[in-house]
Amino acid sequence: MGAYMLSNTDKNRTRVDIYGIPYTIVGTESSSHIRLVASMVDETMRDISAKNPSLDISKLAVLTAVNTMNDYLKLKDEVERLKEELNRVKD
Amino acid sequence: MGAYMLSNTDKNRTRVDIYGIPYTIVGTESSSHIRLVASMVDETMRDISAKNPSLDISKLAVLTAVNTMNDYLKLKDEVERLKEELNRVKD
Repeated sequence: MGAYMLSNTDKNRTRVDIYGIPYTIVGTESSSHIRLVASMVDETMRDISAKNPSLDISKLAVLTAVNTMNDYLKLKDEVERLKEELNRVKD
Repeated sequence: MGAYMLSNTDKNRTRVDIYGIPYTIVGTESSSHIRLVASMVDETMRDISAKNPSLDISKLAVLTAVNTMNDYLKLKDEVERLKEELNRVKD
């Protein structure tokens, strides 16, 4: 099994299992952070699988990425909103 | 092909292609938002595939979810930081 880059600047290697498959993740992030990320992906895959039992693993993983990207964009809107509020309050 | 729930409260159905595979996404979000999310997942899969050409599609999709979850958690930290700053400034 290869090692997969989370970021281009490297250097920690962390082995995790996601949905029963082992991955080695390489990145600047701490191993504990990588393990947290992996456990959240694993949990989201299990949640989606419970709602859509007939999905194969690659579709399940793609829909996990779709869900997470949706949550990411919502947070991005919240960051913008908070920055604007902060600018208003500081004036 | 089935339809996959992005949220439990439904009702828009949007058909998207991600990495060449069709999905129907069901959720409250607008179709244009769903298409944006799908295009960002597609782009992330293509970026990771370019860096790791030997990955099969399910591992590629899992690592896309890992990358996106990592970005999500970074933004979550930023939201917390901004909220704290806002509370300090308001005092």
